[in-house]
Amino acid sequence: MSLAESRPRPDGPVRGRPRSEAVERAIIEGVMKLLEDGVSLAELSVERIARTAGVGKATIYRRWSGKEELFIDVVRAVEPADPELPGVCMRDDLVVLLENLRQRGLASRTSAMLHNAHAQMKSSPRIWAAYHANVVAPRRALGLEVLRRGQRDGELRTDVDLELANDMLVGPMLTRAVLRPDAELPEGLAEQIVDTVLEGLRPVRSTAS
Amino acid sequence: MSLAESRPRPDGPVRGRPRSEAVERAIIEGVMKLLEDGVSLAELSVERIARTAGVGKATIYRRWSGKEELFIDVVRAVEPADPELPGVCMRDDLVVLLENLRQRGLASRTSAMLHNAHAQMKSSPRIWAAYHANVVAPRRALGLEVLRRGQRDGELRTDVDLELANDMLVGPMLTRAVLRPDAELPEGLAEQIVDTVLEGLRPVRSTAS
Repeated sequence: MSLAESRPRPDGPVRGRPRSEAVERAIIEGVMKLLEDGVSLAELSVERIARTAGVGKATIYRRWSGKEELFIDVVRAVEPADPELPGVCMRDDLVVLLENLRQRGLASRTSAMLHNAHAQMKSSPRIWAAYHANVVAPRRALGLEVLRRGQRDGELRTDVDLELANDMLVGPMLTRAVLRPDAELPEGLAEQIVDTVLEGLRPVRSTAS
Repeated sequence: MSLAESRPRPDGPVRGRPRSEAVERAIIEGVMKLLEDGVSLAELSVERIARTAGVGKATIYRRWSGKEELFIDVVRAVEPADPELPGVCMRDDLVVLLENLRQRGLASRTSAMLHNAHAQMKSSPRIWAAYHANVVAPRRALGLEVLRRGQRDGELRTDVDLELANDMLVGPMLTRAVLRPDAELPEGLAEQIVDTVLEGLRPVRSTAS
């Protein structure tokens, strides 16, 4: 996957500082090139990244506190961007959120670099925690917000814990995308999960027949 | 966790061969000791295991084809055993299956050795595949069998794909137990998930009030 396919993020690791988009791209592309060449996270160094990107080490340190923070931004640049929610009804917003998880799952399967980056993050507790705080937690908060609105608008049972409801919705998709890398992620899976979780697995009492 | 807490498995890596339970235990305990001492899977060798267990290398090779297969048996010896299903109704069997996943999640949190063993397995594609084939796949097949019986007995919608239904049930528990190590795994969670997934998240049409 090339960087041209990725979107720039509005929020980066260093806030409120003017920055050159082009330099940042060159640095991120440099890390991607190194990762694609099979360089591991342990072997990555700011010096080596600087050399590959054709910038000075100070230029990198002005933007990121170290290679770990930079690494997370590289992953964010390659992963599908967080979605815009239509905001019309809970059901449709949930479908968009789950579709984004499906796209992330597909990206991790098709991009060896991303797959490798995820694996490396998981083996480093510090980076995993930072990725979790910067990427996973905000996404989860967004899902909970959608569910809260759904409860308010009468689209979601009010007697179900929101954290549990969220796990019931994202759990099946994450299980397929992350834990079962051989499982299918077909088009329409997001709708299927959301609608079936809302409807329940019990046989429908026959009122129409 | 001591080996005394673990149950011997009826099926081992080598079938139809008479074996000494005591020797096998000594070998498995030897690997556990090495793992607890912080020895990594990469550093483990059959020679070192043999020395620790006080047996010859040939004794190990008579039982396991190599350290990878032995490692999987060590993990199985420490993990909670697969449950006996009551077999009365689908709902109760599902609760037992999910409760077992919850117990496994708790075990992986409280046993540093098990946690470490899981992490090491995941970083080795070959061992992970073997663990999947020997431990995860049969457990999944059991869940699908319970759901199939549920469909036959009218406890489960017949218009839902069984694989999807299974992911809808185990997904929320796995998400908490595996993907969100900081999430709570309270008592009663298995019942809560099963009943809510069966019932659905849509507000109940008020007929009783």
